[in-house]
Amino acid sequence: MEILTVGNELLIGKICNTNAQWLAQRITRLGGMVRRIVTVPDSLPDIVQALRDCLSRKPDFVLTVGGLGPTFDDMTLQGVSEALGRPLKLHREALRMVEEKVEEMKAQGILKKPWLTPEREKMATLPEGAEPLYNPEGTAPGVKLQAGETLIICLPGVPVEMKAIFDLHLEKLMAERSKLKYAERGLFVEGIPEPDFSPSIDEAMKRHPEVYVKSHPKGGEATSKIELHISAFAPTLEEAERRVEAAASWLEAEARRLGGRVERLG
Amino acid sequence: MEILTVGNELLIGKICNTNAQWLAQRITRLGGMVRRIVTVPDSLPDIVQALRDCLSRKPDFVLTVGGLGPTFDDMTLQGVSEALGRPLKLHREALRMVEEKVEEMKAQGILKKPWLTPEREKMATLPEGAEPLYNPEGTAPGVKLQAGETLIICLPGVPVEMKAIFDLHLEKLMAERSKLKYAERGLFVEGIPEPDFSPSIDEAMKRHPEVYVKSHPKGGEATSKIELHISAFAPTLEEAERRVEAAASWLEAEARRLGGRVERLG
Repeated sequence: MEILTVGNELLIGKICNTNAQWLAQRITRLGGMVRRIVTVPDSLPDIVQALRDCLSRKPDFVLTVGGLGPTFDDMTLQGVSEALGRPLKLHREALRMVEEKVEEMKAQGILKKPWLTPEREKMATLPEGAEPLYNPEGTAPGVKLQAGETLIICLPGVPVEMKAIFDLHLEKLMAERSKLKYAERGLFVEGIPEPDFSPSIDEAMKRHPEVYVKSHPKGGEATSKIELHISAFAPTLEEAERRVEAAASWLEAEARRLGGRVERLG
Repeated sequence: MEILTVGNELLIGKICNTNAQWLAQRITRLGGMVRRIVTVPDSLPDIVQALRDCLSRKPDFVLTVGGLGPTFDDMTLQGVSEALGRPLKLHREALRMVEEKVEEMKAQGILKKPWLTPEREKMATLPEGAEPLYNPEGTAPGVKLQAGETLIICLPGVPVEMKAIFDLHLEKLMAERSKLKYAERGLFVEGIPEPDFSPSIDEAMKRHPEVYVKSHPKGGEATSKIELHISAFAPTLEEAERRVEAAASWLEAEARRLGGRVERLG
């Protein structure tokens, strides 16, 4: 599974990529493994190249975020069209979704000018073979299309819209397709410098090869504070929980043996 | 310029990639254009592949973040070594930097156990041809090496260390090498729905082709609140400022003409 986020605002550091973090966390908890997150500018060649690179790795899912709006610099669907060689076509169902939103906005007196047809149509113009995903929070529908082994999902970049489409259409789909379940534990160890504790981490991963342990020194080496994050995927949730618990318990005992204080993190 | 961030914690959504945002913002303000941000797991094949992909695009700089620490899952330098075909070698100057830090920690009574030689040496083992960059905030030095047209810079993932190395070694280097300067303006427009205002944005960019205008609808379409971000690179700071100011003034007037309220954003 890969995530492709599109937007100049991310590449000038105007905002942090909270969309990617939100998706990565949700997908992980649904048993999906995110292997790569890529951010490219609102530039058609960059989007096309990144999509092609991504598809060449044959992930089961690609989620794109951003670039579905009405303005000319929203070019994700054009990028998908070029990367796949599938022409853009006005999609009847997508147009119905967009029109419904426009009627709502007109009825609420929000739109002052007549809705611009080319821009309305742009949001309903999808690569051939794509299906629109109803957007409960905005006008631009999400888009879903199968390309070989990869299911491509395109989500808008406005966080409230992205999250709403994910919850409505993708949560169930991803949980169904995920063959794995995920569990995690956090430990906070104080009083042992990271270099003194890292052999224990290596040993924990040798004893529990199916578990991943990541240590994060907090506030510099001199403070001797380490946050440990212990995670595992397994075929069942029970098994994933059992794996992380076994590694966490071993590390807790080891930290105490070395004279550290340990607490569990929520 | 590309940024490669390494770390499982980013791909499970445990943390937001604030390191990438910080670097992107600093680099942009120094006149550098970040074209891509990639995140891969702590996995050697993923790091090697991402580096090779990146180098094939021949950016002037690649900044990697994370994976320089003492534990076996810190494998960025091994990744650089494999991607470039340059063997890892113990670097005398890097070892001196690491030893100095170890002596400091010993003197402060932080290290309880003897410092582990293989792990100390790991942080001082650099790809052939690399130079260490002194880390004022931690043990692992940053790393700098030229690979063809690309200068590769490797920074640790602990934010305070990454920032300190950037400030000490890279700020001046990037400013010197950047041929461009950057300026930006923010406008907040209220009372015009984004679809009604987007033709004005298109028109602004036609009138000022050297300026990039990005609109961000805030809080959903029904609120009719738009944040506009106007930015430009130019050969001099004065010229970059002149360009964004011209576009911002035009957009301000246009928003007022359409009945909106406008304010400048800090």
